[in-house]
Amino acid sequence: MVKDLVILAYSGGLDTSCILKWLIQKNYEVVCFMADVGQNEDFEKAKKKAVAVGAKDVVVEDLRKEFVCNYMLPAVQMGLVYESRYYLGTSLARPCITVGLVNTAKNLGAKYIAHGATGKGNDQVRFELSMYSLWPEGKIIAPWRIPEFFQRFQGRTDLIEYAKKENIPVSATPKEPWSTDENIMHISYESGVLEDPAAIPPGGIFKMTRDLAKADDYASVLDIHFEKGLPVSLRIPSGHEMALHVNDPLVIVETLNKLGGQHGIGRIDIVENRFLGLKSRGLYETPAGTVLHVAHVDLEAFTLDREVLRVKKYLQDKMADFVYNGFWFSPEAAFTRKCLELSQESVTGTVTVQLFKGNVTVLARKSPNSLYNKDLVSMDIAGGFSPEDSTGFININAIRLKEFARLSNLK
Amino acid sequence: MVKDLVILAYSGGLDTSCILKWLIQKNYEVVCFMADVGQNEDFEKAKKKAVAVGAKDVVVEDLRKEFVCNYMLPAVQMGLVYESRYYLGTSLARPCITVGLVNTAKNLGAKYIAHGATGKGNDQVRFELSMYSLWPEGKIIAPWRIPEFFQRFQGRTDLIEYAKKENIPVSATPKEPWSTDENIMHISYESGVLEDPAAIPPGGIFKMTRDLAKADDYASVLDIHFEKGLPVSLRIPSGHEMALHVNDPLVIVETLNKLGGQHGIGRIDIVENRFLGLKSRGLYETPAGTVLHVAHVDLEAFTLDREVLRVKKYLQDKMADFVYNGFWFSPEAAFTRKCLELSQESVTGTVTVQLFKGNVTVLARKSPNSLYNKDLVSMDIAGGFSPEDSTGFININAIRLKEFARLSNLK
Amino acid sequence: MVKDLVILAYSGGLDTSCILKWLIQKNYEVVCFMADVGQNEDFEKAKKKAVAVGAKDVVVEDLRKEFVCNYMLPAVQMGLVYESRYYLGTSLARPCITVGLVNTAKNLGAKYIAHGATGKGNDQVRFELSMYSLWPEGKIIAPWRIPEFFQRFQGRTDLIEYAKKENIPVSATPKEPWSTDENIMHISYESGVLEDPAAIPPGGIFKMTRDLAKADDYASVLDIHFEKGLPVSLRIPSGHEMALHVNDPLVIVETLNKLGGQHGIGRIDIVENRFLGLKSRGLYETPAGTVLHVAHVDLEAFTLDREVLRVKKYLQDKMADFVYNGFWFSPEAAFTRKCLELSQESVTGTVTVQLFKGNVTVLARKSPNSLYNKDLVSMDIAGGFSPEDSTGFININAIRLKEFARLSNLK
Amino acid sequence: MVKDLVILAYSGGLDTSCILKWLIQKNYEVVCFMADVGQNEDFEKAKKKAVAVGAKDVVVEDLRKEFVCNYMLPAVQMGLVYESRYYLGTSLARPCITVGLVNTAKNLGAKYIAHGATGKGNDQVRFELSMYSLWPEGKIIAPWRIPEFFQRFQGRTDLIEYAKKENIPVSATPKEPWSTDENIMHISYESGVLEDPAAIPPGGIFKMTRDLAKADDYASVLDIHFEKGLPVSLRIPSGHEMALHVNDPLVIVETLNKLGGQHGIGRIDIVENRFLGLKSRGLYETPAGTVLHVAHVDLEAFTLDREVLRVKKYLQDKMADFVYNGFWFSPEAAFTRKCLELSQESVTGTVTVQLFKGNVTVLARKSPNSLYNKDLVSMDIAGGFSPEDSTGFININAIRLKEFARLSNLK
Repeated sequence: MVKDLVILAYSGGLDTSCILKWLIQKNYEVVCFMADVGQNEDFEKAKKKAVAVGAKDVVVEDLRKEFVCNYMLPAVQMGLVYESRYYLGTSLARPCITVGLVNTAKNLGAKYIAHGATGKGNDQVRFELSMYSLWPEGKIIAPWRIPEFFQRFQGRTDLIEYAKKENIPVSATPKEPWSTDENIMHISYESGVLEDPAAIPPGGIFKMTRDLAKADDYASVLDIHFEKGLPVSLRIPSGHEMALHVNDPLVIVETLNKLGGQHGIGRIDIVENRFLGLKSRGLYETPAGTVLHVAHVDLEAFTLDREVLRVKKYLQDKMADFVYNGFWFSPEAAFTRKCLELSQESVTGTVTVQLFKGNVTVLARKSPNSLYNKDLVSMDIAGGFSPEDSTGFININAIRLKEFARLSNLK
Repeated sequence: MVKDLVILAYSGGLDTSCILKWLIQKNYEVVCFMADVGQNEDFEKAKKKAVAVGAKDVVVEDLRKEFVCNYMLPAVQMGLVYESRYYLGTSLARPCITVGLVNTAKNLGAKYIAHGATGKGNDQVRFELSMYSLWPEGKIIAPWRIPEFFQRFQGRTDLIEYAKKENIPVSATPKEPWSTDENIMHISYESGVLEDPAAIPPGGIFKMTRDLAKADDYASVLDIHFEKGLPVSLRIPSGHEMALHVNDPLVIVETLNKLGGQHGIGRIDIVENRFLGLKSRGLYETPAGTVLHVAHVDLEAFTLDREVLRVKKYLQDKMADFVYNGFWFSPEAAFTRKCLELSQESVTGTVTVQLFKGNVTVLARKSPNSLYNKDLVSMDIAGGFSPEDSTGFININAIRLKEFARLSNLK
Repeated sequence: MVKDLVILAYSGGLDTSCILKWLIQKNYEVVCFMADVGQNEDFEKAKKKAVAVGAKDVVVEDLRKEFVCNYMLPAVQMGLVYESRYYLGTSLARPCITVGLVNTAKNLGAKYIAHGATGKGNDQVRFELSMYSLWPEGKIIAPWRIPEFFQRFQGRTDLIEYAKKENIPVSATPKEPWSTDENIMHISYESGVLEDPAAIPPGGIFKMTRDLAKADDYASVLDIHFEKGLPVSLRIPSGHEMALHVNDPLVIVETLNKLGGQHGIGRIDIVENRFLGLKSRGLYETPAGTVLHVAHVDLEAFTLDREVLRVKKYLQDKMADFVYNGFWFSPEAAFTRKCLELSQESVTGTVTVQLFKGNVTVLARKSPNSLYNKDLVSMDIAGGFSPEDSTGFININAIRLKEFARLSNLK
Repeated sequence: MVKDLVILAYSGGLDTSCILKWLIQKNYEVVCFMADVGQNEDFEKAKKKAVAVGAKDVVVEDLRKEFVCNYMLPAVQMGLVYESRYYLGTSLARPCITVGLVNTAKNLGAKYIAHGATGKGNDQVRFELSMYSLWPEGKIIAPWRIPEFFQRFQGRTDLIEYAKKENIPVSATPKEPWSTDENIMHISYESGVLEDPAAIPPGGIFKMTRDLAKADDYASVLDIHFEKGLPVSLRIPSGHEMALHVNDPLVIVETLNKLGGQHGIGRIDIVENRFLGLKSRGLYETPAGTVLHVAHVDLEAFTLDREVLRVKKYLQDKMADFVYNGFWFSPEAAFTRKCLELSQESVTGTVTVQLFKGNVTVLARKSPNSLYNKDLVSMDIAGGFSPEDSTGFININAIRLKEFARLSNLK
C-alpha cells in the first residue's frame, strides 16, 4: 500500500523531531521542510537529524530575500503595527513559510502538511489559513490538537522520554525556560517564566540587541531612502568612520539589525490579544524593523495629504489585524494591501535618523513630493496666505458649536 | 463714552505687549489675563510690565492643577496621540486657558477676548472655538488677522521699533531663533530655524529634558498606579535610594517631569498637519506625559477586552483630531470623551516602568481586572482549553478563504 | 443513577420533537422551554406534544414585552442594520430567548442546554455565545453537530420515519418548502426553494405584510414620538377615522405591525454574510421595525450634531455586526451599547410618517432639541450669518488642495 | 484699458442675470457658461437673454454624458449615500460643471470664475474647491458673499427691481416658493416654504416622479447588468409588452428615470448637515439613481467577500462625505476612489428588480463571480461542511466571553 505523503514544517528541535517520528509510526511518509527566514540555525545538522529520525527527505529553502522583499518591507510600507506596539515579525513569516510548504507539497504530490504549532497559539491559524487560501484541497495534520498525541505528550518530559526511546538525538544544552521564534526581522520570547505578566523578565534574554547599559556610547546617523514607501537604500555619508551605502534589501535589513542591535533598539515587552481570544505576554526585539518603521512614519507625515493619511490609518489598522490573525492570504488583505500600496505613490524621500541608546530619533527629512511648504507655513512671511481667511474659517467652524451651546443653554 | 473692555491673553512677551498697547490706542480698556499652566515665567514681572504699558488690571490665575487634572491626565486616560506621535501638550492647554479667559470676561463684563495667536496656526482656532462654545455671544479680537495690524507689523523689527517708541520694555536677551509654547505637560519648539524640515535642529534647544548623552547613567524603576485609566499614584519602593510615593496629580506630573527629564525622555521632531491644512515642523518634549502614556497603553492591553480595545481605538483617534483641531468643547468631543471614560472602567492596576536613556520600558504589570489568564494561556497546562476546538475554529475561518480561492481558480 | 437534566429550546416542530425523544433515549431528563416572543404558535398544543413525547416538564415563558423593550426598541434606538439592509429580527431574539433558557436551567439545576439549530447557521452561535456569557459553566448539546445524530438524520424523511416509529405526532399539513423564524419583530424565510438566489421567490410566502398589489389604497399618517431615541408613543390625531394613541411598547409594535402590514411595508430579499463565512439568501418582513427605524433615522439627523452622528455611525455599524454574530452579551456590545445610548440623550421629538404601498415617507418632524435653526439656514434672512466668513472658510479648505495641485503640476 | 474676463456660471434665472449685469457694471467682461447636465431648460432662450443683458458670449456645453459616465454612475459603483439617505445628485454635478467652467476660463484666458451660489450653501464650496484643485491660480467672484452686492440685494424684490431698471427680462410666471436644482440624476427642492421641517410639504412639488397615488398600477421588472460595479445594460426581456435592451449609459439613465418616475420611485424628505455646519431640509427625487443603487447594493453583497465589504463600507462613507463637502477633486477623494474601484473588480452580474408604487424590490441576482455557494449553505446537504467544526468555532469565540464573565463574577 502506498503511504500518504506529509510535508512537515520542521525546526530541528525536540517537538518537531518527535512529531516526525510519530507521523512515521502513524504510517505516513514524511518529507521535512525547513525555511531559512534568517534564524540562527545549523540547517545541515538539522537535516541530518531529520534523516536519522526517518524523514524521507529534507527540503531546506532560503526564503530570506523573499521574506524581506515580500513581507517585511511591505509591512513597513503599509505601516503595520499590531495593537499599537508589535511589528508582526512572526505573523509575517508564517505565510511566507507556508508558500514554501505548499509549493513543496504540490511539487512532491503530498496530500498533507503537518506542523508543530500548539493549539492555543496564533501560528497554527496563520499556517493553516495561508494553506487553505493557497491550496484549498490541502489537508492539515496538527498533532498538538490530536487527542492521541497531546494526551500522550503532556509536557517536555514526555517528549524527552519518547525521544530517548526512539533514538531521537536530544540537545545536551538545557532548553531556555521560554520559547522563541526567530527570523531576520525579529525574535520573540514567550511562555515559561515569561508567562507571569507581573514578573520582570530575567536578564540575558535578548539576542539581536544589546542591553541599553551595554549599547554603543556614540550615536549612528543614517540616511534611509524610500521609494513609494519601500526602503531602498541606506547610507552613512562618506567621511564618517562608518561610511556605507547599501541598496540590496537583504543587506539593508542585515545592516540595520547590526547597527540597531549595537544601539539596543527595538525591544518591547507587551501583553497582546491573540486571535483565539486569549491574552499572552511576549517580548520582542525588532532592530531593523523598528528603525525602518520610525523613518517611514516620518516620511509619510511629510509627503501624504492629511486626509489621505487618515484613510490610510484606518486601512493599516485593519491590515495589521488581518496579518496578525493569519489572513495575509485573503480577499480582504489582498484588497487592503493594494489600497495601502496606492497610498504610497508619493512616499519617496530620505529620512535622517540617529540611533543611540535604544532611541531612533528622526533628525531631518527630504522629499521631492513633500506637501510641506516652507513659505506657506513661515511665521515671517505671508507666502500667499491671507490671515483674514482664518477668521472666516473659524467662524464657520463655530456655527455648529454656537448652535449646540444655544440649545444647551436653553435647557 | 464708556470704553469696551477686552480681556487679553497676555504672555509678557513682545507680541502681546505690543498688542496691549495697540488695543489701548484703539480705545479699548484692556485687562490682561495670564494663566499659569506651569510655564517658566516671572508672573510678577510680567504683571508690572502690563500695568506699565497701560493695562487696567492683570489677572493671573494658577491653572496648573486644573490643567493636569482635567486636561492632561484625561488625555492619558483617553490615549490621545495626534498623528501617531504628538501628545497634544499645547492643544490641551488652549481650552483650559480659554476657560480662564471666558470666566474673567464674564466676571468683569467684558465684550471681547483678544489673543496674540497668528493667522496660520492652530492656537487661534483652539482659543476661539473654545470661546464660542463656552460663550457664544463673546467676540474675538485677533490682531494678527486684522490687516491694519499685520500690515503695520510685518516682522519682529517692526514690533521692536513700536515697543521702543511706546516705551514698552523689550527684553535685553536676544530671542531664540524659534518660538516655544510651554506648560507643565510639554514645551514645543517651532518656526524660525526649525522651519526647514531637512535641517537637523541645533543643539541646546530642549529645556525639560537632558540630551541623551548627558542623561543619567542609572535606570529609574517606578510603579505607576492607575484607577479607571487615570494615573493616581507614583511609587519607588522604599529600600531604593530614591524611594518616593506621591498621590497628588500635580506632584505626580512634576516628579515624572523631573525624572523623565533626567533620563532624556519624551523628545520628538515631527512634521504634522495643522487644522488649516498646512504642514508644519515641530519639536516637542513631554517627559511625564510620555511615561504616563506608555504605562497606560500597557495597562489597557492588560485589562481591556480585545474588541473593546478596537472600538476604543477608533474613538481615541477621533478624539485626538477633535482636540488638536480645537474642538475640546464641542458636542462630538463631549460625547466621545464620555465613551472613552466608559471604556476605562476596568483599567485599574499598576505598571512597573524603567526610565533610562530616553527609553520608557515596561517591565511588569498587575491588575485586579486583568483579562490575562495565566492558566489558560500556559503552554504547559490545558487550563480548561480543548485543543480540538481550534481545529473547528480554523476550519470555519477558512470557509470564506476556500470559497474565494475556489472562485479565483475558476477564472 | 440520577439523570442529567437538559433544558431544550423547544419549538413544537418536527426537529425539536425528535431531538427531545433522542435526548431521552440518550438517558437525559429533559425539560422543554418555549419562549413566546410573539410567534404565531399554539403553545398549549406544543406543550401537550412535548409531554407526550416524554418531556419531564414544559416551561412556556411570555417574553414578548421583554423582547420588545430590551432588544427590539433598543435596536431601533441604536440604529442597528446589518449590511445596510437587515434589521436583525432573529439576531435580537436569540439572546432574549437564551436568558429564558439560562434562567430555567439555573432554577431547575440543569447542567445542559440543548437546541435544534443547525451547524451551518448563525443561531447556534447566538444561543451558545449568549449562554457562555450568562452562564460560563453551562454546557451545550447541539445534536445537529453530533455525528451520531446528524449522520442518522440526514434529511426530513429520516426525521419523519423516526417520529412515526417513536409515536411523535407529525403535522398533517405538509411543510412549506422553506424554513421560517418568527417573532413579534419579523418573520424570516430561507433555505429550500429560496436557496437559489437567481430564482424569484414564489408568491404567498409573506405572512405579516400584504402584497403591494393588495395593500391598502389609502395612506395612513402617524405621529411617532421618541424619548432619548426610544419610541414611546404612537398617535393618529383624533378627527381621523383611525384615530389612536398608544403608549405601551408592546401595543406600539403590534399596532405598527398591523398598519405596516396592511400597507405592505418592510419586505426585503437579500443575500447576507453569515458569521461562519457562508453567504445565504433570506427574505424578511419587518413591518413595525421598518417604520420605527425610518422615523428614528430622521429624528436623529434632526437632533444630533453632525460629528456626533458620524462617531455614532461607526458605533452602530460595529454593534450591528456584534449582534448579528451573536455577541449581544459581550464586553464589546455592553460598551458600545452604553456609548450608543449616550448618543441618544437629545434624540427626543415627534416624526410624522406616511405609510402607503410599501413606502414609509417622512413628512415632518419636531423636537425641542433640534439643532435645526430656521433663521440661520434661511435663504431670505441673514440670521446672524456673515457671508464673508464663507470665503475664508473655503479659502482655508483650499490650502491643502492647492498645495496638492501645485505638487502634481510640478511632476 | 483691457477689462478682466470673468466666466459666469449662468442659469438663465433672475439671480445670475442680475449678477451678469452687476459684473458688467463693475467693469468686467463676462462670458456666460451654461452646462447642460440634463436640466429642463431652454438654452437658446437663456443664451439670448444673456446676450441681451450684455454677455460678451455664451458657451453652452452638453455635459450630460460626461456627468452620467464620470460622476453619477461611478457614484453608484462606489455606493455613495450621504448620511444614509441622500444620493448626492447636486454634489456630483458641481465638480462636473466646474470642469466646464475651468476649461472655458483657460481657453478664453479668463482670470475669474463667478457663480450665483449663496453664502450659506454647499454649492459655493463645491464650485470653488473644485476650481482651486483644477486651477489653483484661478480667482473666484461670489457676489452673494460681497457686502456691496448682498447688502444691496436683500431679497427677491430688490433683484426684480434692479432687473426692471436694467431691462433684464423677468419671467412672467411667478417663482415657486422654494428653490430647485435639477440635472439628469435628480431634482432637489429646498428653502422657502420647505424651510419649516415640521411642515408637511405642499403637493405638486415633484417633477420627475409621479405621486404614489398616481403611480402605475402594474409592476415593471427589469434586468440590470453591472460590470465591475458599473451599470452597463438594462433589459426587459422580449415577450414582455415593454421589452427593451439598452447599453448606452445616458439612455440607461433616461430610461430608468422614465420608468422610475412612472412608479413614483426615489423621493425623500430629509434634514441634512451642510458642510458649513448648518442643518437644512431638502426634498429630493432621484428615480434612476435609486433603482441603480438598490440593485448595486444587492450585487455587491452577492459578489464581495464579507470583510472586503466592511473595508469598502468605511471607504464609501468617507467618500460620500468628501463628495458632499466639495472635495471631489482632492487627494483624499482621488485615493479613496481608486480604492473603491479596486473593490469592484468582481462586482459583475445581473440583478432583477421590480419597480412598483415607489418600491424597488430585488427579486433575483446572478453573477459569474458570486461567492454564494448553494451547496455549502444548503440545509439539506453537507456540501463539504463538517458540523463539528462549528463547535470548535463557537467554543473558541466563547473564550473571551467566559473570561470576561469570570472576571465580572469575581467582583
